[in-house]
Amino acid sequence: MPRKPVLAVVGSSAPDARTNRDAEQLGALAAERGWVVITGGRAGGVMAAALKGAKSRRGLTIGILPDASAEIAPDADVAIITDVGNARNNIIVLSGSVVVACGVDGPGTASEVSLAIKNGRHVVLLNASDEAVRFFETIAAHRSDLLRTAASADEAMDCAQRCLT
Amino acid sequence: MPRKPVLAVVGSSAPDARTNRDAEQLGALAAERGWVVITGGRAGGVMAAALKGAKSRRGLTIGILPDASAEIAPDADVAIITDVGNARNNIIVLSGSVVVACGVDGPGTASEVSLAIKNGRHVVLLNASDEAVRFFETIAAHRSDLLRTAASADEAMDCAQRCLT
Amino acid sequence: MPRKPVLAVVGSSAPDARTNRDAEQLGALAAERGWVVITGGRAGGVMAAALKGAKSRRGLTIGILPDASAEIAPDADVAIITDVGNARNNIIVLSGSVVVACGVDGPGTASEVSLAIKNGRHVVLLNASDEAVRFFETIAAHRSDLLRTAASADEAMDCAQRCLT
Amino acid sequence: MPRKPVLAVVGSSAPDARTNRDAEQLGALAAERGWVVITGGRAGGVMAAALKGAKSRRGLTIGILPDASAEIAPDADVAIITDVGNARNNIIVLSGSVVVACGVDGPGTASEVSLAIKNGRHVVLLNASDEAVRFFETIAAHRSDLLRTAASADEAMDCAQRCLT
Repeated sequence: MPRKPVLAVVGSSAPDARTNRDAEQLGALAAERGWVVITGGRAGGVMAAALKGAKSRRGLTIGILPDASAEIAPDADVAIITDVGNARNNIIVLSGSVVVACGVDGPGTASEVSLAIKNGRHVVLLNASDEAVRFFETIAAHRSDLLRTAASADEAMDCAQRCLT
Repeated sequence: MPRKPVLAVVGSSAPDARTNRDAEQLGALAAERGWVVITGGRAGGVMAAALKGAKSRRGLTIGILPDASAEIAPDADVAIITDVGNARNNIIVLSGSVVVACGVDGPGTASEVSLAIKNGRHVVLLNASDEAVRFFETIAAHRSDLLRTAASADEAMDCAQRCLT
Repeated sequence: MPRKPVLAVVGSSAPDARTNRDAEQLGALAAERGWVVITGGRAGGVMAAALKGAKSRRGLTIGILPDASAEIAPDADVAIITDVGNARNNIIVLSGSVVVACGVDGPGTASEVSLAIKNGRHVVLLNASDEAVRFFETIAAHRSDLLRTAASADEAMDCAQRCLT
Repeated sequence: MPRKPVLAVVGSSAPDARTNRDAEQLGALAAERGWVVITGGRAGGVMAAALKGAKSRRGLTIGILPDASAEIAPDADVAIITDVGNARNNIIVLSGSVVVACGVDGPGTASEVSLAIKNGRHVVLLNASDEAVRFFETIAAHRSDLLRTAASADEAMDCAQRCLT
C-alpha cells in the first residue's frame, strides 16, 4: 500500500480571521482526500487551525514542534519534538509532498516558502500579498514549476493534488 | 482525547537475528497497547523491524529520516525528513514518551541512549551488553530513575508502560 | 577585552560579477574595521568572495559548512561542519552581530534574510532587487528597525557598523 | 597555507578539580602547537577551561553555543550560535580534526564521544572511567583505530598530534 501524501501547511501564528478559516478548511479538504497534514504543531494560528480541520474529518495529524516546552496543538495526533529552533522550518517543508502557505505575512513563513523552493518542494501560496507573489516569482525563476498561487482553500487543495502527478 | 503515548525504538541498522526479532515483537506489543511507534525510519535493521511489528497490529508508525535520499522503511505510515544527519538522533529520542534500545552495539545507538538520558527521557535497555549497562549506570548516576534493563520485548514493553505513570 | 563583532555575509553561490566584487570588498572592509567574517564557507560565490576579501586584510574568517563533503573556501581560517543541511542557514545568521545579504536572488539567501529577521538580527540588503526590498519591508513591518538597504559595500559596512550601537 | 588543525574538547560542565586542570592544560598545549580550540562554549566547566588555556597561549578559540541566551565563555574569540539544542554536540565533534573528552562522566559527553565515533572522528579519552573505556571499546569494535586513551593532558595532546598523520 503506498504511503499517503503529506500536506505541509505553514503560516502565521497570529493570522487574521480569513487566513485562519482558510487553514482550517484546507486541513479538512486534505483529510477528506486522504492526505496526512503536518504543521509546526503549536497551539495557535495556522498551525493549530489546519490540524483542527484535518481532525474534524478524521485525518492523521502531525505537529513538528520547536522544543519540548512548546504548547502542542490539541488536534495533533503525534508531536515530533525537534529542539532545533527555527531550523525545524526546514523539516516541516521537507516532510511535505506539497507545501501550502496560508498567507505569507511574517518572516517564519517566508523562510518556509524559501526553504521549500530551495529543497525542490512544490509550494502553493494561498492568499499571499502581491509583494510576496512577485518576490517568490523572482526567487523561483529557474524552477517556476514549483510555485503556484491560489485564492481559496479549495483551489489550493486542487493545486496540491495536481502537484502529486 | 489524550494523545497516544509514543515509543521511540532505537538500535542497530544491522542487528543479529535475536535483536531483529526483539524489535519486531516490541513494535507489535506497543501497537497492541495503543502506542505510536517511532524509529529512525530507514529500510533495514531495528528501525524497519519495529515499524513492521507495529504495522502488523495496525499501529501508527513514523520514521524520522536523516535526509530525502534515505530509503524509507516500507511500514512507516509517515516519513519525517529532517536533513540534520546524526542530529536526528536527538529528535527521535525527544519525540518518544519512552525510548527502548534494542541492543546497544554501535555508536549511533550509544548516542541515542546518551541523548535520551541527557533530555530526561526514560530509557529501557533491551538485551544490552554488560559493558553498556555498567557504563550507562555511571552516566545516569544522578538520574538512575531514567534507566531500566529488560531481557525480552515483553519485559521492555512492561517497563515502558510503567514509565508512563 | 570585548569579543569582536561578527559580520555574517550571505548571498548567491553563483553571483554576477558585480555582486561577487561587492562581497569581496565587503569582506575587506569588515576586516579592516576589526570584524570577524562568517559565511556559508563553500568554495565559490559570495561565500568564498567575502572570506577572500577579509583574508586579504588579515581578518579572521569562519565558514559554516553544510557537511563534511562540501569543498571549503580556501580563505576560511576555520570550518564549522554542521551536517544540518539548509538548517545551517539559521546558524549563519544567528552567529552574526549583523547580516549583510549581497543580492537576494535565490531561495537560500531569501531563507537567510527571513531567518535573520525572525531571530531579531539586523539585516542589510546590498543591491537587492526591488521585489526583494518590497517583500522584506512587508515581512519586517513590525520590526522595521531591523532592515536597511545599501547600494555599495562601503554603504553596507557603514550600516552594519551603525547597527552595533 | 594549510588550515590549522582543530581540537574539539568536550567534557562536563561541572568537572572535578583535576578534570578542570586537565582541560585548561590541554587548551594551552593545543594553542602552543598551533591548533584552533573548539568547545561547547558555555561559561563554565571543561568548555570554559579549555578555551581559557588556549587563550593564555594566544590561541584561536571558538565556542559552539546551544542558543542565543547561553552565557558565553569569556575566552571564546567567536561564538557560533546554533539554536539546535543538544544536536550541537554533533557539530562540535564534526568540526574537530580530533576530539578529546576530558572525563566522560555525563550523558552529554557520552553522546559526543558516540557521535565522534559514528562520524569517523578520532577520539582521545582523557582520564575516562574504566566503565567508559570498556564500553567505547565495544562500540568502536570495527573502528578501533579511532579510539585512544590518555592519562594526562600532555599524553592526550601527543595522541591528538599523531592522529593528524
